[in-house]
Amino acid sequence: MTIVPDRTMPAAAPSREEIFAAHDGGKLATGLTVPLENARDLAVAYTPGVAEVSRAIAADSSLAARYTWTNRLVAVVSDGTAVLGLGDIGPRAALPVMEGKSALFKSFAGLDSIPLVLDTTDVDEIVETLVRLRPSFGAVNLEDIAAPRCFELERRLVDALDCPVMHDDQHGTAIVVLAALRGAAAVQGRELSGLRVVISGAGAAGVACARILLAAGVPDVTVLDSRGVLVAGREGLTGEKAALAAVTNPRGVSGGVAEALDGADVFIGLSCALLPEELLTAIAPGAFVFALSNPDPEVHPDVAARHAAIVATGRSDFPNQINNVLAFPGVFRGALDAGARRITEAMKLAAAEAIFSVASDDLSADKIVPSPFDPRVAPAVSAAVAAAAGRTSDAG
Amino acid sequence: MTIVPDRTMPAAAPSREEIFAAHDGGKLATGLTVPLENARDLAVAYTPGVAEVSRAIAADSSLAARYTWTNRLVAVVSDGTAVLGLGDIGPRAALPVMEGKSALFKSFAGLDSIPLVLDTTDVDEIVETLVRLRPSFGAVNLEDIAAPRCFELERRLVDALDCPVMHDDQHGTAIVVLAALRGAAAVQGRELSGLRVVISGAGAAGVACARILLAAGVPDVTVLDSRGVLVAGREGLTGEKAALAAVTNPRGVSGGVAEALDGADVFIGLSCALLPEELLTAIAPGAFVFALSNPDPEVHPDVAARHAAIVATGRSDFPNQINNVLAFPGVFRGALDAGARRITEAMKLAAAEAIFSVASDDLSADKIVPSPFDPRVAPAVSAAVAAAAGRTSDAG
Repeated sequence: MTIVPDRTMPAAAPSREEIFAAHDGGKLATGLTVPLENARDLAVAYTPGVAEVSRAIAADSSLAARYTWTNRLVAVVSDGTAVLGLGDIGPRAALPVMEGKSALFKSFAGLDSIPLVLDTTDVDEIVETLVRLRPSFGAVNLEDIAAPRCFELERRLVDALDCPVMHDDQHGTAIVVLAALRGAAAVQGRELSGLRVVISGAGAAGVACARILLAAGVPDVTVLDSRGVLVAGREGLTGEKAALAAVTNPRGVSGGVAEALDGADVFIGLSCALLPEELLTAIAPGAFVFALSNPDPEVHPDVAARHAAIVATGRSDFPNQINNVLAFPGVFRGALDAGARRITEAMKLAAAEAIFSVASDDLSADKIVPSPFDPRVAPAVSAAVAAAAGRTSDAG
Repeated sequence: MTIVPDRTMPAAAPSREEIFAAHDGGKLATGLTVPLENARDLAVAYTPGVAEVSRAIAADSSLAARYTWTNRLVAVVSDGTAVLGLGDIGPRAALPVMEGKSALFKSFAGLDSIPLVLDTTDVDEIVETLVRLRPSFGAVNLEDIAAPRCFELERRLVDALDCPVMHDDQHGTAIVVLAALRGAAAVQGRELSGLRVVISGAGAAGVACARILLAAGVPDVTVLDSRGVLVAGREGLTGEKAALAAVTNPRGVSGGVAEALDGADVFIGLSCALLPEELLTAIAPGAFVFALSNPDPEVHPDVAARHAAIVATGRSDFPNQINNVLAFPGVFRGALDAGARRITEAMKLAAAEAIFSVASDDLSADKIVPSPFDPRVAPAVSAAVAAAAGRTSDAG
């Protein structure tokens, strides 16, 4: 049974007027955690009192984590090159998205967060800029940065900064997709090790999803880009895609979506490429279709449901919403709580398992992941990530 | 009559414990201006609704000022090289001061503000960093950056950024000093054009004070650095100091504080150099002494009062506290309200006049400036600065 709300009902969707009114003046504000109402307040929080604190940090820089806001401050960093489905719209136009992301950090994980949008798309310059700003924040959430640049940028920043760095479009997505796959498999009593998975899209999200599924024990993952299946030796395959071809596609499938989907158990859509219904006819019985493109899924969930047993999208108006907000607030909160310098593969796997576990006693084909507003999720993810950080040697 | 509170009373001063407790976790937080409690909120403030706003800004970048928080966001930028009286303690140790400053922007002018502390002291690199971050904020308050680097840095940033930039240690101080001088002169029915002023200190504050006093019509300003009076032709005089020597010291005084103070009407202390009482004996009758070093004034106000008619300090526990908080919140608020690209000399003069005007009907020798907590000050400064921005061709 699939509950499909009537999306044609206009009252349900926010109007343009409502959206712009909510954005008037922006969505973020700074506030004070101490009073500043009289001369004594000023003497405590500013001069001369603050000099005591500055002097203490000058003597022991590790005290900055305790006596400034940085230890719970996530910088949401973007160059505006891959914003939602809008593409390369630049840093100014990306800002409302980044403000929204910062607001989600606060709302879901109690973390302070500021958007930093950059008027450069040069990897060297972005790294250099964040290295210079390093004392100003406690973690970096990279957001909406185009592939393949995002891979190099994240790698370089992880090396250059002694704090948690994560490109959410890659790893946040990968974590929730893995959680959802665990949920769907559990509904059917299946194991990840028995699944054949097809990922459409070899951008930020597709690459990271493929890698986390392999790490989680899915044996047969095949990835497609706009030119077809990634297979070792395909002409012109370089960089991240060539690396991925070397560890995926164990049966050496070549061709397009039709060839990849033949007998597959799972389709994961992470591109904007539409999936025509006839291609779904070859999918295995009891299959899962995760059509995650926003706002338009690769295939309408009603259509997908004719061929698949479990259907998920990225949208809130269908069942099984696979939304990054299930992951990133708790991941950063856990990493910061643990004082981790890295967000490791083990921490990401722990996050996925925590999301799955929250709803594991109440799963169904229409509820393979918890609701984004389930208040148990962020604390569970945060605790699992912090625990995994403690167990991982390269996290500390 | 001078009201001197008993500074020896320990209950009045905040304890070390109280100060550190107030700083635990930092003094700033980010908050949301929109609800994020259910799927509909998410659809308005984040996806898919936010895409409408991003699309609008992509088509017309000027809309970023309206639909993001940047238009009221002041970046408080420091490299930590001249922090309070502590000197070059670095960006991490400077952070508590910058958080305090950001908190003051919020508390006194309703402006959001974030500290950005930089792990570089190179002027080129600081300029480059802020140029890349330009879409992230609406104005830059430079803070605690050592002279003479601060002069070049401010000049370069004013050229490079199309938004208000002000080094508060220079111009905030200059504005309040001018306001205080106007107040003191008014108490005695004197004009600025009749005053002979000595400024001790040729750092950020001293240079800016000298320049604003000249602009306000004080005809005779003499500036001293640690080696004595700035006078044209003094050996080794370069850069900002040489430029200042060319426009100050009209009587060509050379020597030290004693020579400069002989017959002077005003002493303004903006260095940490102590002023021995015997040097004050040569000051003119009815003189003003502004001993502004913090936390230790150049001369104790009780001592100064034996020789001067009006005494001011930077401290809240003496009368006549000359504090930058009278100026910077309203200056930035006015500049941002007016959409000004520059903070011009006319805007600074208007700010000083507005601070003076707020208390002009209630002046006395012990009240030459309004209290920092006088709620009339910031709105008056902001309105005056915005009006001056409208009249100034290079502000817009």
